[in-house]
Amino acid sequence: MSKETRYTVIGAGHGGKAMAAHLALMGFPVTLYNRTPENVAAIKTRSGIELKSYEGGPHGFAELVLVTSDMGEALEQAEVIMVVVPSSAHADIARNTASHLRDGQIVVLNPGRTCGAIEFAKVLGDRSCQAEVTIAEAETFIYASRSEGPAQARIFRMKDAVPLAALPATRTPLVLEALKTAYPQFIDGVNVLHTGLNNMGAVFHPALTLLNAGRIESTFGEFQFYIEGVTPAVARVLEVLDRERVTVASALGIRARTAMEWLKMAYDSTGANLEEAIHNNPGYRGIKGPRTLNHRYLFEDVPMSLVPMVSVGQRY
Amino acid sequence: MSKETRYTVIGAGHGGKAMAAHLALMGFPVTLYNRTPENVAAIKTRSGIELKSYEGGPHGFAELVLVTSDMGEALEQAEVIMVVVPSSAHADIARNTASHLRDGQIVVLNPGRTCGAIEFAKVLGDRSCQAEVTIAEAETFIYASRSEGPAQARIFRMKDAVPLAALPATRTPLVLEALKTAYPQFIDGVNVLHTGLNNMGAVFHPALTLLNAGRIESTFGEFQFYIEGVTPAVARVLEVLDRERVTVASALGIRARTAMEWLKMAYDSTGANLEEAIHNNPGYRGIKGPRTLNHRYLFEDVPMSLVPMVSVGQRY
Repeated sequence: MSKETRYTVIGAGHGGKAMAAHLALMGFPVTLYNRTPENVAAIKTRSGIELKSYEGGPHGFAELVLVTSDMGEALEQAEVIMVVVPSSAHADIARNTASHLRDGQIVVLNPGRTCGAIEFAKVLGDRSCQAEVTIAEAETFIYASRSEGPAQARIFRMKDAVPLAALPATRTPLVLEALKTAYPQFIDGVNVLHTGLNNMGAVFHPALTLLNAGRIESTFGEFQFYIEGVTPAVARVLEVLDRERVTVASALGIRARTAMEWLKMAYDSTGANLEEAIHNNPGYRGIKGPRTLNHRYLFEDVPMSLVPMVSVGQRY
Repeated sequence: MSKETRYTVIGAGHGGKAMAAHLALMGFPVTLYNRTPENVAAIKTRSGIELKSYEGGPHGFAELVLVTSDMGEALEQAEVIMVVVPSSAHADIARNTASHLRDGQIVVLNPGRTCGAIEFAKVLGDRSCQAEVTIAEAETFIYASRSEGPAQARIFRMKDAVPLAALPATRTPLVLEALKTAYPQFIDGVNVLHTGLNNMGAVFHPALTLLNAGRIESTFGEFQFYIEGVTPAVARVLEVLDRERVTVASALGIRARTAMEWLKMAYDSTGANLEEAIHNNPGYRGIKGPRTLNHRYLFEDVPMSLVPMVSVGQRY
């Protein structure tokens, strides 16, 4: 596909706004959907998003084709549907899209966490969706980004390489081909068991949050989450969790990437151990802790990442 | 017994130095034992300890009768032996005292944590100790204190009431009578299952340490442990742990004190919930976090408090 590929971004949070704005600045026609009209009212009024980013990164006013809270309208012209919502909302999105999807559309979960594409396909099946769509999932979200106002977004960094897999895996090349003009960073993630079991948020987020719970709540997250929050002992806990994940994957015959290998691949960050490799990643500098414990690092990553991994581990 | 009661304090750490100094300032003849001669060299040279404390509290130079690293010498004249070491060292102390104990001596574990007196008695039995000694345990340590130099100690606060129980419980009155001139704060703790299952360190220390692990390690404990470290969510975890402890106790037919009841009893501190009751305790103000995670809050309280409680819970 070309610069004419029509994208619909579902979700206008920290991630969705950055992705929609960046795609539009790259020249693609972009529709942005959000369930709650109030959340996109300012973007709709201005017909676009003001994007800032790192030195030399994409920036400027990104004009969108359509901003809507009507799922039918949102999907009507879409060729690629980028789902950028917490994975705990994937099932809801699947239910709401089921009757609107059309043959040939591609749905990409950004990211799928663990078993996201499998869940999405199951819900579409349960809803008797007949459309020949291709569902894929990214292993992680390609941007580090923040919403900085009702119609403002900022990209801190883009990952160099993000594995992506379709369900079934035979369709992965089709999805990579469709996305490659916009995102050459997407690479073949083998299959959705690989992307799901290489989910690093499962390893990093809940443990880091719990082992810094008191500090998060008493300072409202005012500390460097990956720098001050990852101490030698905390890093050792992450290493143990990471070994568990890799062991579960190997029970399925999958050679999962270790967190160290992932930091090297995604950020080109290395070190003698996990603590060093995390501290050496400039992408983590400046990232504060969550402002509250009522946060996706627990309420998304535990049910949508750790629980599926534990289930797979117990089953195999 | 009277002011003539001869005390031997075993252990010259934060607690042992404060207790030895306070007893001596009250007029009792006190022997101080520490396994490592270097640790008490300064005290031996000066024949005493410089004690400071809160406004109006005990203070001054406390002259000791004997400072020794020879267990036989330490116990020879003792009527009451106050063991003030991490509970993980109780078994070692029992082994080392077994051949030196004499009929009529009283051994008090300060505190016993969970099942401390039972363990101490078992080790003496295993070593075929024939002396008719009475073993007792305090539910918690009576002082909040710190060592402030090689021959210096400071008491921050003394608890108002500390339950104590002997093994068997029929000897508790004998122990309370022996201690009452020095420590009217000791009260009847019913029996050692009560003191062991009312062990609040088990509830507070490990959970607070783990939920503040990143902050402890990255700041070397430079924050108020019970004020900044106990946030609403952390306090809810402590409440859940506390209910587990009370439930385990009830399986043994014991009505354990809740953490809230204990704060009221020991510190006269109250609140609408555990977070408030902890924050309202002036005794917790100024107490910093542990400087490292390699600390008794984990390495003593998990094996010597939580593990016995879990075992009791599983058994009954």
